[in-house]
Amino acid sequence: MRQTYDDLKTQLGEIVDLRRVAALASWDQHTKMPPGGQRARAEQLATLGRIAHERFVSDEIGRLLEELRPYEEQQPYDSDEASLIRVTRRDWEKARQVPPELSAEITRAGAIAYAAWVEARKNSDFSAFLPYLKTNVELKHRYVDCFEPTDELYDVLLDDFEPGMKAAEARAVLEHVRSELVPLIRELAERGDDVDDSSLYGDFPLATQKEFEQVVLDRFGFETSSWRLDPTVHPFASGTARTDIRLTSRYFADRYESLFSTMHEFGHGLYERQVSESLDRTPLQRGASMSLHESQSRMWENLVGRSHPFWRHFYPLLQPRFARLGDVDLETFYRAVNKVQPSLIRVEADEVTYNLHIILRFELEQEIMSGAIPLTDLPEAWNARMKEYLGIDVPNDAQGVLQDVHWSFGGFGYFPTYSLGNVVSVQIWERIREALPDLDEQIENGEFGALRAWLGEHLHQYGRKFMPQEMLERLVGGPMDAGPYIRYLKDKMGGIYGLTEVAAAT
Amino acid sequence: MRQTYDDLKTQLGEIVDLRRVAALASWDQHTKMPPGGQRARAEQLATLGRIAHERFVSDEIGRLLEELRPYEEQQPYDSDEASLIRVTRRDWEKARQVPPELSAEITRAGAIAYAAWVEARKNSDFSAFLPYLKTNVELKHRYVDCFEPTDELYDVLLDDFEPGMKAAEARAVLEHVRSELVPLIRELAERGDDVDDSSLYGDFPLATQKEFEQVVLDRFGFETSSWRLDPTVHPFASGTARTDIRLTSRYFADRYESLFSTMHEFGHGLYERQVSESLDRTPLQRGASMSLHESQSRMWENLVGRSHPFWRHFYPLLQPRFARLGDVDLETFYRAVNKVQPSLIRVEADEVTYNLHIILRFELEQEIMSGAIPLTDLPEAWNARMKEYLGIDVPNDAQGVLQDVHWSFGGFGYFPTYSLGNVVSVQIWERIREALPDLDEQIENGEFGALRAWLGEHLHQYGRKFMPQEMLERLVGGPMDAGPYIRYLKDKMGGIYGLTEVAAAT
Repeated sequence: MRQTYDDLKTQLGEIVDLRRVAALASWDQHTKMPPGGQRARAEQLATLGRIAHERFVSDEIGRLLEELRPYEEQQPYDSDEASLIRVTRRDWEKARQVPPELSAEITRAGAIAYAAWVEARKNSDFSAFLPYLKTNVELKHRYVDCFEPTDELYDVLLDDFEPGMKAAEARAVLEHVRSELVPLIRELAERGDDVDDSSLYGDFPLATQKEFEQVVLDRFGFETSSWRLDPTVHPFASGTARTDIRLTSRYFADRYESLFSTMHEFGHGLYERQVSESLDRTPLQRGASMSLHESQSRMWENLVGRSHPFWRHFYPLLQPRFARLGDVDLETFYRAVNKVQPSLIRVEADEVTYNLHIILRFELEQEIMSGAIPLTDLPEAWNARMKEYLGIDVPNDAQGVLQDVHWSFGGFGYFPTYSLGNVVSVQIWERIREALPDLDEQIENGEFGALRAWLGEHLHQYGRKFMPQEMLERLVGGPMDAGPYIRYLKDKMGGIYGLTEVAAAT
Repeated sequence: MRQTYDDLKTQLGEIVDLRRVAALASWDQHTKMPPGGQRARAEQLATLGRIAHERFVSDEIGRLLEELRPYEEQQPYDSDEASLIRVTRRDWEKARQVPPELSAEITRAGAIAYAAWVEARKNSDFSAFLPYLKTNVELKHRYVDCFEPTDELYDVLLDDFEPGMKAAEARAVLEHVRSELVPLIRELAERGDDVDDSSLYGDFPLATQKEFEQVVLDRFGFETSSWRLDPTVHPFASGTARTDIRLTSRYFADRYESLFSTMHEFGHGLYERQVSESLDRTPLQRGASMSLHESQSRMWENLVGRSHPFWRHFYPLLQPRFARLGDVDLETFYRAVNKVQPSLIRVEADEVTYNLHIILRFELEQEIMSGAIPLTDLPEAWNARMKEYLGIDVPNDAQGVLQDVHWSFGGFGYFPTYSLGNVVSVQIWERIREALPDLDEQIENGEFGALRAWLGEHLHQYGRKFMPQEMLERLVGGPMDAGPYIRYLKDKMGGIYGLTEVAAAT
């Protein structure tokens, strides 16, 4: 039996190797590759993806999984062995539902639609993108049809990013967020001028930004033996192994922003860095879901990186580095990096309004898939909801419905995990506060070792061993709940904007 | 038939994708990867190599090749189609001779021996490396035994790097080189003090070196859309496509040397850059052999980069960039970069003595494989020959028999191609001089377009379509011949060292 298990592990190890190399090829494409490599790289990535997929959905893997049922039952549920067999079986059964031709067609259509989207966005011309979007939606319907019927078809899409979660559950959480945040944002917007963020705009030399962010990363636990950081256009975290974590960030010389992007990616990187060594070269060596992953990036970006204790430690180090900050005091800077201001572009949104950008997309995705919104009406629906939730007018589709890449590659079901990650981050944060009562003091002293260790012990080490809900249950003792997140936002913004009545009311 | 051909091309395309991605993973390992990625990277490279090999030696490829015999005969011999089938059949038949278990054992033993070699070299302890070398030699014997008997067993080893060339042919060429160069070097060594290269030592700030080498590369034809250049420890050229060429170089702040390494790698890169687009994503999209590849790197490093016309153009640009060169005139600098001086380390050797380093290794390899030298006597044999050929004493094995990596991975048969490349470079250069009578003027004007175009038209575009001997015949109208190379060295060094009688005698 152990031999059969080792066979499975060896075969999965090869598949992991292929996927890790694909991650490298993609990282390279976005950070190092000369533009001339584009066409060949697309072929290389397609080949790696196809071979990895073929090997994974093979009858041989199915046979091994079947033979290993008794072995799995003998092992403790949370052992590496039982977990690897259990999670692999779920992955395998799911992957086997989709005919290879359909997978290939989705990939191909996505690549074509991506190119069309780039062009359409450039020209702010939704109608040019419409036929490709239509194809993507049709293909997604065919994809959904491959699976057993679920409560609603969006369940299938969400499962690709948040295994086991139902659309109804996500909706309940996000409607709670929306119902609380829309009025909060309205109130904050009225007081928008109370917070001045002009100190974040001006001359911020790139070399100094990079030097300082390395100071922060070093404190966070970035070690050059296992990490690297490179500039890119759309930041992401990647890597080829637990001990080869690659962050990317983007830099602007005329405003201070990149540090938050870098801290965000650090959170993703740390999750993968701290997965148990015993899961090396297995499919479990990743985060449990998108929302759990996002909870980690948001935690380091916002709960740590936009907190008052953090800046009590780091602002005295930052301020002397930039002439622009010469006469800006800590409080002014802290308020600036926490300013809430409705805006057009999701990736530039503040901590609060960000969620409404997500909820809008989540709602539209469901309506697109159910047919409730004809695709031709999408820009109109987008713009109306932007007005309703954030009170702003969308001047054109490039800054509206065409701004995100996700729908071009058919990534429906992805968006909600961003806000669910925010929600989860504060549920976890509350547990950490209980375990580390002096967390604020530690952060104020620039010490992150205990925080890192707690996350490693209670979340990171497990990788993908458990389903996300199960992981969350073990971690915070209950299901996803927006309450703590809403309280956190109201407390924090209440403090900054002096909305004591709001804070008190929660 | 065309369908069968397209099937073959598709299957080979996937194998090329895997090999290109492996090249990327290796490039990354030597330029970007955090050290923590080492172990996982070794697994990833092994997996890619194994899958590419399995796919290539499959019965399916054999069946397609067999079915395509009539199609091949219908196509012109030098067509892409006939060439792809012909070259692939040779590769396939060769690869099929070696049992996968033996290939795997050679790879594994090489990896283990490499680690032992690194350690042994550090401690200058040949005896610590000896058992691993012994294993490598035994495995190479088993490898040779997989093939039909040849005139001598070294033929099989040489064929891996220089397809179709016999050891006897290489020997004839290299013995010619040796017989002429040993006395020449002796004579030059006596006049060593005539050439002062102290101007190459001193303060050469790295940033300025890099800025200037980019000036040279830009003139050579390096375009950022399709090339990149990164620092590494042991320079090499690589890439993932015809339009993604990656050079590496190494830099020293206390001497001026890196430019020559960079120009060398540019020569390799240009060969692959100019292979016909119609051979994209096929196994023909590479150089025809190691010696032809090396002819290109040596050409740009030495025939171009150490020539008087080259420095007439570039020295006025180089000199003002470095304070160290303030009072160094063109002639002094030109003589310095061409100084001939016997030394211990191959990779630091000058244009002339380099060949003796190679010939020594070539001879020892043959004697190792034939058993003429017991492995225990290798250091002694090495040192005796260093004395005989270059007149120098080897102080320890680290600077002697342990200096090169090649024997650690079992790369017997590789060394001779370096000097054969020198030989070929001048045979080609003579053809270029006939075709471009004003080549010196072009180089003096910093113009390399016609040279590049000639190389593209007469050599590069063909990739691996022809066997190396056949390619050389087409290119220079005859077989490999050391005569032109020896004449070139004597002329050039005769001019620099004032040995008019030597130059006249040839």
